[in-house]
Amino acid sequence: MKKVKLGIIGCGIAARELHLPALRKLQDKFEITMLCNHTEQKARDLSEQLGRVPYVLDYRELLESSEVEAVDIALPIHLNFKVAKDSLLKGKHVFVEKPVTANLREARKILSQSEASDLVMLVAENFRYRKVYLRAKELMKKGKIGKPYAAMWDLFNQVTLNSKYAKTKWRQHPKYPGAFVSDGGVHNVAALRMLFGEFTSVKAFTKSINPKIGSPDTMSLQFRSQSGVDGVFNIFYSVDGYWENRLLIFGSRGSIIIQENKLMLKNNSEDDYIEEVEDDNGYIAEFTDFYNGIRKKKKVLSTPHEGLKDLEVIIAALKSAESNRSVSLTH
Amino acid sequence: MKKVKLGIIGCGIAARELHLPALRKLQDKFEITMLCNHTEQKARDLSEQLGRVPYVLDYRELLESSEVEAVDIALPIHLNFKVAKDSLLKGKHVFVEKPVTANLREARKILSQSEASDLVMLVAENFRYRKVYLRAKELMKKGKIGKPYAAMWDLFNQVTLNSKYAKTKWRQHPKYPGAFVSDGGVHNVAALRMLFGEFTSVKAFTKSINPKIGSPDTMSLQFRSQSGVDGVFNIFYSVDGYWENRLLIFGSRGSIIIQENKLMLKNNSEDDYIEEVEDDNGYIAEFTDFYNGIRKKKKVLSTPHEGLKDLEVIIAALKSAESNRSVSLTH
Repeated sequence: MKKVKLGIIGCGIAARELHLPALRKLQDKFEITMLCNHTEQKARDLSEQLGRVPYVLDYRELLESSEVEAVDIALPIHLNFKVAKDSLLKGKHVFVEKPVTANLREARKILSQSEASDLVMLVAENFRYRKVYLRAKELMKKGKIGKPYAAMWDLFNQVTLNSKYAKTKWRQHPKYPGAFVSDGGVHNVAALRMLFGEFTSVKAFTKSINPKIGSPDTMSLQFRSQSGVDGVFNIFYSVDGYWENRLLIFGSRGSIIIQENKLMLKNNSEDDYIEEVEDDNGYIAEFTDFYNGIRKKKKVLSTPHEGLKDLEVIIAALKSAESNRSVSLTH
Repeated sequence: MKKVKLGIIGCGIAARELHLPALRKLQDKFEITMLCNHTEQKARDLSEQLGRVPYVLDYRELLESSEVEAVDIALPIHLNFKVAKDSLLKGKHVFVEKPVTANLREARKILSQSEASDLVMLVAENFRYRKVYLRAKELMKKGKIGKPYAAMWDLFNQVTLNSKYAKTKWRQHPKYPGAFVSDGGVHNVAALRMLFGEFTSVKAFTKSINPKIGSPDTMSLQFRSQSGVDGVFNIFYSVDGYWENRLLIFGSRGSIIIQENKLMLKNNSEDDYIEEVEDDNGYIAEFTDFYNGIRKKKKVLSTPHEGLKDLEVIIAALKSAESNRSVSLTH
């Protein structure tokens, strides 16, 4: 099948470090035909790296090109909506970094627009494609831990201004609610929704411990879900002296423990089962899904609808933290 | 100073396994002068063990004895109120196992009664006396972790009917709200209040995974406190395949990690500080406090007022779980 001619809009960290390694492995599926970046230096550097792929400084120029049939939008979050909207208007398939947009109003608009078109739009939420979570889902479906009833996710780390992500000005002064806990936390929410279905209510508190990296940087979110699996998701970005990324899933007959790409299945009557899942964090899978959406007309996994649902949870959590009330999510 | 003549009411697990080892080390302070248990066998066994201390089957008989000036009440929770009330009426100092009573109405009544008397009443909440928590408090006071902002306590284990505690009929069919999560959780609430001050609101969910041990057996409690330290306390008694008891305290300049009696102080700029705190879980300290209350007229640490406050948090959490709302605690 013909390669998809891909234009990359935004030559920052996401494009260079997250997307490019995957695209290099998918050269039978994608051809990078054009680049765009507002700061010329970044565009030129990436162009050189890719063997002098043509670049432009204005994304509207890229959208005019017949050499581009799909775009990879890897921009500051607050630009997602405008660029995705214009891309769809110009007949381009859209692959856009999470979160789908900066707010729910924009997310609902882009959802309508994409649903009204025949174009493929995929929200690049890699956690929906990460093998370790898909494997956990499979094990639960097989009944390996009985009936799941709770999920506890602890993400404790320290992001300082030395972090490449925290250095980006748009993260320090975010034009979207929730700063790091929204930008980062939307990943975990996506995985939790994928594993346990829709959240019915959330209750959260947030804190700003190191305002330099953007506020808030700390959130504890208690959720209840339609499936009856309730839990807590803690995302703390200013923890000094402790580091952890651990998802515990408790079932009536066993537990699943996930730490990064390591999955453990434990119960008190059988031997532990431990699996190190080989994974590139889902990037190859999400681009492959995008390709299959375009060339094979398959429905993609990470639709704008899913992106909207992820964002709804984050926004509800922020609202809950502000009001100190439980916020319900209706569907 | 004269030894306190102590009558033990209830010769079950708490008296035999928790109180007796401490009392044996405090023979200069306490003399066990009488025992009482409804089931004669238990009373007789303990009497033999103690060199034939006289025993009775009805606590009212014990309260009539001039050889008893203070009582150690180690009974099923729902009996605490009546026996404590009668003991105070008969002029005996009262040492009563936690939680202070089965409900708030009783707790308020016994508080009034004890405050109106000159007698010492101590709620035997050993977590208020555990060195490891007192040490954490001291380190925080010294500014070792900067400004504390969050506390996350995970208590995950599996209590089955093989557990000596779960075997007790009054725990399987509790005549007090909250079953194991109340009976057990009140300990951690006491420690958290001691460390971080009064809770201002709670939001919880509860579950009943193994109804045989009493319902509920699972609770996740999000709390906010007056001191600005907010957090989550998870108490899960039916976890199959995973075990943990870990309190994390996060501050602006470091973290404290407590696992049982081990305390670690960590931050990203200095070497870790690790301390194994020698402790009998606070039993000697609580009896000593009781003794000093009686003989030295010192105010005890674990008053009925503190017991009431602990219980208020648990009751608010259960109410929150039922309503799925945040419940505020006013003071």
